[in-house]
Amino acid sequence: MRDISSNVRLSVTEPADLVFSVAVAFTNTIESETLTVTLDGSPLDASAIVELTDAHGTRLHRVTAPTGVLEVAYSATVSGSTPLDAESMDHVEYLRPSRYCDSDRLANVAWSHLGPKQGWDLVEGARRWALENIVYAPGSTDPVDGALETYLSREGVCRDSSHLIIAFLRARGIPARLVSAYAPGLLPMDFHAVVEVLMDGAWFVIDGTGLASRPALVRIATGRDAADTAFLTIVSGRADLLTMEVSAITREPLPYDDGRQQVRIG
Amino acid sequence: MRDISSNVRLSVTEPADLVFSVAVAFTNTIESETLTVTLDGSPLDASAIVELTDAHGTRLHRVTAPTGVLEVAYSATVSGSTPLDAESMDHVEYLRPSRYCDSDRLANVAWSHLGPKQGWDLVEGARRWALENIVYAPGSTDPVDGALETYLSREGVCRDSSHLIIAFLRARGIPARLVSAYAPGLLPMDFHAVVEVLMDGAWFVIDGTGLASRPALVRIATGRDAADTAFLTIVSGRADLLTMEVSAITREPLPYDDGRQQVRIG
Amino acid sequence: MRDISSNVRLSVTEPADLVFSVAVAFTNTIESETLTVTLDGSPLDASAIVELTDAHGTRLHRVTAPTGVLEVAYSATVSGSTPLDAESMDHVEYLRPSRYCDSDRLANVAWSHLGPKQGWDLVEGARRWALENIVYAPGSTDPVDGALETYLSREGVCRDSSHLIIAFLRARGIPARLVSAYAPGLLPMDFHAVVEVLMDGAWFVIDGTGLASRPALVRIATGRDAADTAFLTIVSGRADLLTMEVSAITREPLPYDDGRQQVRIG
Amino acid sequence: MRDISSNVRLSVTEPADLVFSVAVAFTNTIESETLTVTLDGSPLDASAIVELTDAHGTRLHRVTAPTGVLEVAYSATVSGSTPLDAESMDHVEYLRPSRYCDSDRLANVAWSHLGPKQGWDLVEGARRWALENIVYAPGSTDPVDGALETYLSREGVCRDSSHLIIAFLRARGIPARLVSAYAPGLLPMDFHAVVEVLMDGAWFVIDGTGLASRPALVRIATGRDAADTAFLTIVSGRADLLTMEVSAITREPLPYDDGRQQVRIG
Repeated sequence: MRDISSNVRLSVTEPADLVFSVAVAFTNTIESETLTVTLDGSPLDASAIVELTDAHGTRLHRVTAPTGVLEVAYSATVSGSTPLDAESMDHVEYLRPSRYCDSDRLANVAWSHLGPKQGWDLVEGARRWALENIVYAPGSTDPVDGALETYLSREGVCRDSSHLIIAFLRARGIPARLVSAYAPGLLPMDFHAVVEVLMDGAWFVIDGTGLASRPALVRIATGRDAADTAFLTIVSGRADLLTMEVSAITREPLPYDDGRQQVRIG
Repeated sequence: MRDISSNVRLSVTEPADLVFSVAVAFTNTIESETLTVTLDGSPLDASAIVELTDAHGTRLHRVTAPTGVLEVAYSATVSGSTPLDAESMDHVEYLRPSRYCDSDRLANVAWSHLGPKQGWDLVEGARRWALENIVYAPGSTDPVDGALETYLSREGVCRDSSHLIIAFLRARGIPARLVSAYAPGLLPMDFHAVVEVLMDGAWFVIDGTGLASRPALVRIATGRDAADTAFLTIVSGRADLLTMEVSAITREPLPYDDGRQQVRIG
Repeated sequence: MRDISSNVRLSVTEPADLVFSVAVAFTNTIESETLTVTLDGSPLDASAIVELTDAHGTRLHRVTAPTGVLEVAYSATVSGSTPLDAESMDHVEYLRPSRYCDSDRLANVAWSHLGPKQGWDLVEGARRWALENIVYAPGSTDPVDGALETYLSREGVCRDSSHLIIAFLRARGIPARLVSAYAPGLLPMDFHAVVEVLMDGAWFVIDGTGLASRPALVRIATGRDAADTAFLTIVSGRADLLTMEVSAITREPLPYDDGRQQVRIG
Repeated sequence: MRDISSNVRLSVTEPADLVFSVAVAFTNTIESETLTVTLDGSPLDASAIVELTDAHGTRLHRVTAPTGVLEVAYSATVSGSTPLDAESMDHVEYLRPSRYCDSDRLANVAWSHLGPKQGWDLVEGARRWALENIVYAPGSTDPVDGALETYLSREGVCRDSSHLIIAFLRARGIPARLVSAYAPGLLPMDFHAVVEVLMDGAWFVIDGTGLASRPALVRIATGRDAADTAFLTIVSGRADLLTMEVSAITREPLPYDDGRQQVRIG
């Protein structure tokens, strides 16, 4: 049983069309859940909030916001989850280069660093390369940076390490994608980003930062890269982030994770 | 009634896993259709060919090829088509930056060139900007080039003009995507790439090159950019293109197209 | 008569080879001048400091520093200056693309924004474009960013606006280069960077930020871009900036500068 | 004794300002030399040709050309040469990143591939890395590509391998620069580009392609990268290359060169 919540406050200075990706995916068994959206402290009209379902059970909330201070508070209790099946198109779709996982540009680089490794050795090679070479440095990267920029600067956060691992794996023929998640035990607590790899006919999760316990993760969004999973997308108008708080607690002891077992998340 | 065909010959020098996107989409009314795959002149075993269905009725053929000369011959007769509906996620998904349509990097540039235009004026502005500024130059671009590179070099083919228009439109809030198509009347004849924009609740097609008659187009693949629609993707192994032929004929007179009417394709 | 000074303090954590560009150029009439280099408060051995003369009277101080806190304090009083002559090679050298002024990539962009303008109209056009389009935003740029990145992000500091103006002008056939300077009256006070353009056989200075009074500027370094003029270059070893202070005062009233007169600096 | 010549023919379609770098440097002992410039077969007025001297004895010829077919024919006989001395500023200037040798972006990459190597081991490591990893592929690169693009694509010509070696060495603290040269014995014959490295107080030449005999090289231009050494720069107007021929013959046997001895050129 895991209890998660997030609170995002924005200053909307021009009427804005916003997409939030904070609700847990439909792959989770949701015991209870609340989503509250207020503007300057008063509830926003329900018609201004639309829930959309993206691929793989991802849920988005599209909010049409007038100017003011917008607050999106979400909480849920999750009792379990079902792993996503590997669909036949996954084998093709998640080999393609994407905006922040430019595996086509990094094809030779992936070969240089991972050599002729195959299968799980290759996956472990990519994970270790990121762990050993990418310095965890909040604030070092720009939203427009992708795997190439991370490869050159060797700095970043979970999003950046994940993008680089995904690009390396796709370049070497292993389908890989990004998953945003609530991560009990994560320090500092934040929305987390991890990698899913398609091996032996199933999706397994790996953590490019080594900071989270994977069995405790609660899936939010699943996609090609951060373009599909960002907790906030400003479609139009203007809004500036004021504060953000994330909480994720597991009622059971946090499962120990050495990062190398094969783990699936729901 | 349109008769289309394509023939792709490859030299496979290491056993290869290949994905072809040459069959017309399920949005078309297909009167008859043949797909023949041979290796060194003999039919390839049927088990080596798998048809996959991607989003929006796109059909892919994944081929496991031993070494030799691989030939993929496709032909179809299409009597009509049904336009794709705009789904609710389309409004979000096709605003996201993608590998070759880096709308996030080009946000300021789009504003510089298109200014405060809105709606159809904005769409027409983007189309005209590409027509007037991008020189049609086969061989000028690299497969790893995206909209930014095309914007800087001002050269490219249908793929490149389309990527730039899509990036401009997404940056300005209009969902846009890439469609590969057979294009009766196209000179020189080749696989064509056009743009679909989501306006007034429906997907309309625009042609960044002005070379095709849009009402005659036959849809093949639909996606974020060329990563989703390339006629050939080499997943693993090694294969070099030897020859490629494309044919597309309409039995009726080719519809006149000034490029500016609102046209939907199936 | 202008009194200028700067104080740079670094934490040297691995023995380092450092190059400082803080002394005023030989084009200035220097009434008095002091340079003091200390390590952990004690004067550094004179043999560890070498003065080098770069092109155009630029003076560099190369310092071999052991670990510790290194402090470089410079002050000078300048009574006048002689403008640099335009040398024949300047007409060729300062048209070439350079690391941070990638005029070759920006050739089409320069044409888009400046059109067929020529001569001083072109110079004024480039200056105005930067003033109107680049938001002054300390901390927004990375040391590896050049004119292209500034063009895309539309944010930066004096270095970035100057790089973009230089790239635009070179792309349109006007030799241009970067000058670092002490700038009396600058707010906030800092090392400043301005552009020199070669027009009518002489070098004139323009300010892409509009923040400085050009007649009061005191030249430090002159070069192709910030690779030649940075106040600190870490050649080897490791050093982190602790504090930096810059002061520049003119004893006469600060000359009014509307940014558009033709001004030469010495 | 070496006999070299080159012939460049251009179609000038708009009056053009051109800079040629085809004459051998003043570091060579020139026994005889001719430079003939004709337009549509008639000699161009002498006033339209200006010889400029760049750094390090480089000679440029700036030509003001009306429209027509411009032919620049150069030949020389060289009996010997004097190596260039290492000047004190060379130690700083040739460590700086430049347009096509973006050593700042490639700092981590250089460390990944060359590790803690120092001195001549480092130089040999960079040369071998380029020899083993960059495929010689005429036509694969674009004039705007620099070391980063070559690093990613692993393809290029002498210019590209040299840029990458220079970037790697500068990133690791060894001053390095580009030299264009006539190269007796080169196959296919063309203008050649090699690297000079500053070691033990002197400039030594290394060849990133392994195609030339270094002792036989005849220096043309010396600079930071191809921005300083290109055989043709179109400053303004419009001109398209029609044909180019290069010849370089040594009257003595071509010195054997295994690529690893320490060689200086004049």
